[in-house]
Amino acid sequence: MLVGAIEAGGTKFICGVGTEQGEILEQISIPTRGPEETLKDVVDFFKGKEIERLGIGSFGPIQVNKTQPDYGSLLETPKTIWKHYPLLKHLEGHFPAGMPIVVDTDVNAAVLGEIKWGAAKGKDSCVYFTVGTGIGAGVFLNGKLLHGLMHPEAGHMFIKRHEMDDFSGCCPYHKDCLEGLASGTALKTRWGVDGTELTDDRAWELEGYYLAQAAVNAIVTYSPEKIIFGGGVSQRPGLIEQIQKQTLELLNGYIKKNQITDNIEDYISLPGLGSQAGLKGSLALVLD
Amino acid sequence: MLVGAIEAGGTKFICGVGTEQGEILEQISIPTRGPEETLKDVVDFFKGKEIERLGIGSFGPIQVNKTQPDYGSLLETPKTIWKHYPLLKHLEGHFPAGMPIVVDTDVNAAVLGEIKWGAAKGKDSCVYFTVGTGIGAGVFLNGKLLHGLMHPEAGHMFIKRHEMDDFSGCCPYHKDCLEGLASGTALKTRWGVDGTELTDDRAWELEGYYLAQAAVNAIVTYSPEKIIFGGGVSQRPGLIEQIQKQTLELLNGYIKKNQITDNIEDYISLPGLGSQAGLKGSLALVLD
Ligand SMILES: Nc1ncnc2c1ncn2[C@@H]1O[C@H](COP(=O)(O)OP(=O)(O)O)[C@@H](O)[C@H]1O
Ligand SMILES: Nc1ncnc2c1ncn2[C@@H]1O[C@H](COP(=O)(O)OP(=O)(O)O)[C@@H](O)[C@H]1O
Ligand SMILES: [Zn+2]
Ligand SMILES: [Zn+2]
Repeated sequence: MLVGAIEAGGTKFICGVGTEQGEILEQISIPTRGPEETLKDVVDFFKGKEIERLGIGSFGPIQVNKTQPDYGSLLETPKTIWKHYPLLKHLEGHFPAGMPIVVDTDVNAAVLGEIKWGAAKGKDSCVYFTVGTGIGAGVFLNGKLLHGLMHPEAGHMFIKRHEMDDFSGCCPYHKDCLEGLASGTALKTRWGVDGTELTDDRAWELEGYYLAQAAVNAIVTYSPEKIIFGGGVSQRPGLIEQIQKQTLELLNGYIKKNQITDNIEDYISLPGLGSQAGLKGSLALVLD
Repeated sequence: MLVGAIEAGGTKFICGVGTEQGEILEQISIPTRGPEETLKDVVDFFKGKEIERLGIGSFGPIQVNKTQPDYGSLLETPKTIWKHYPLLKHLEGHFPAGMPIVVDTDVNAAVLGEIKWGAAKGKDSCVYFTVGTGIGAGVFLNGKLLHGLMHPEAGHMFIKRHEMDDFSGCCPYHKDCLEGLASGTALKTRWGVDGTELTDDRAWELEGYYLAQAAVNAIVTYSPEKIIFGGGVSQRPGLIEQIQKQTLELLNGYIKKNQITDNIEDYISLPGLGSQAGLKGSLALVLD
């Protein structure tokens, strides 16, 4: 069976065709413009490809509750041109009636991809933080993706500020939530240079401190078997080791689980699927 | 069918016999001493009562993973005399072989009781914070109690300190985690009087600020349909209204869900089962 996958992002839509084993046979990158133009290119790509299912991991916020009439529609996104756009409904019109199409958030796609084929393979639970321009989280618990009332937005949890840090935080809603203190945008605003050019060790130690708090809060709330840090910022060499080290320091012996205390390098890691996590994860969305 | 229930606490064991509908027909309170003495009284209470099942909501930490050999045993509890005590195994020996007995944490029992018969009746998800001497949380998600690697310990999440608060925090592991800043012990240590005698409005406003952060972090991580605050401290008149108000202020419009924004009094509330929550919840543990 051939399966279609779309990683729908704010700057590009990556479309692919793959197998049930998660092998991507063919893919294309389409620049994100208005919905009509962008989706025309998407539909053209899939023409004649004979896919039998389609998984979509999308930027958000997007309605992921299948029981809601607006399932698969964008919600109040700052990208005005996509606001309330019925992504799923539009695409359904271009594929055979009844073909399974599943829409979820990009971070939920990513965590599912990692569970099926990546760094969390075989685990029953995993939290995936993506630390890029903003911070998002995909959560897989009790063998299922977590949705709830809306999808979780763990990037906006409150954490404690470092006593040496007087940056007020850049989240437009909360100022100094996790995203406000530790996203790529926060790095750039606090230090005046982009994360890719930031070399001050103290800056990265502070970043590790905040992301370690994200890990600790994930541990005490979700109690997951695995935590992954993806996204551009997490690629910074040495950062994942900082997160691992400071997570143990912050836990300070409170959690007595070998999986955490003796195997922190396995417990908290980078994604296993590299740059294909989003696309493979989108494919995985429509497989169970 | 008659069902037995034990609310196993650090100061007392409440034992009861009830029905599948959650009606408690008879109950007794046994002071907690050493395991042998305490459990002898427990077993005596149930003698001749013809219960067909037994649910136990216990103080912790306790092994709640049914696949582990030490399922139902206490773990590294500060109550040395109970450390590693095989609570479940001991009790099993006193009931007919094969009689269903389920052990979970007291907070998981409480949230389940509220889901079945209390303030969260009919909901698919609920977070129950108990704010007493310490802070604990029971979590019901996707129609199931959350366990994971160990049970969640959301009382130890990190939150942000209020700028006017210079109390260093009293958690022996983390100092200024949620429990360290907002438990009954924290109130007493910060203000020098017990919570029951604390009347300063600013003190309770600050308490509301911290518990509202617990609510916000629960919302962004779990995305639950309902949040309940139980335990002694939550009984303080006016506190739940403070938590409701400050939760909306802290969210600051970020979450656009009517269930939260227009119905905060329903969304965040006190328990519906009052003082029987623990016992009824323990009974509920062994019903599904
Ligand atoms: N190797 C790197 N080291 C540090 N920061 C990086 C690195 N690569 C990307 N970033 C930062 O990550 C952010 C972009 O994140 P990314 O996940 O690539 O995209 P987005 O979140 O916009 O989808 C930018 O703030 C950038 O500065
Ligand atoms: N009405 C009240 N107002 C404020 N604080 C209270 C009230 N009742 C109990 N407390 C506080 O709650 C804590 C005890 O919590 P409780 O849930 O009753 O027991 P525990 O957590 O020890 O099982 C104490 O710190 C006490 O000061
Ligand atoms: Zn925020
Ligand atoms: Zn703590």
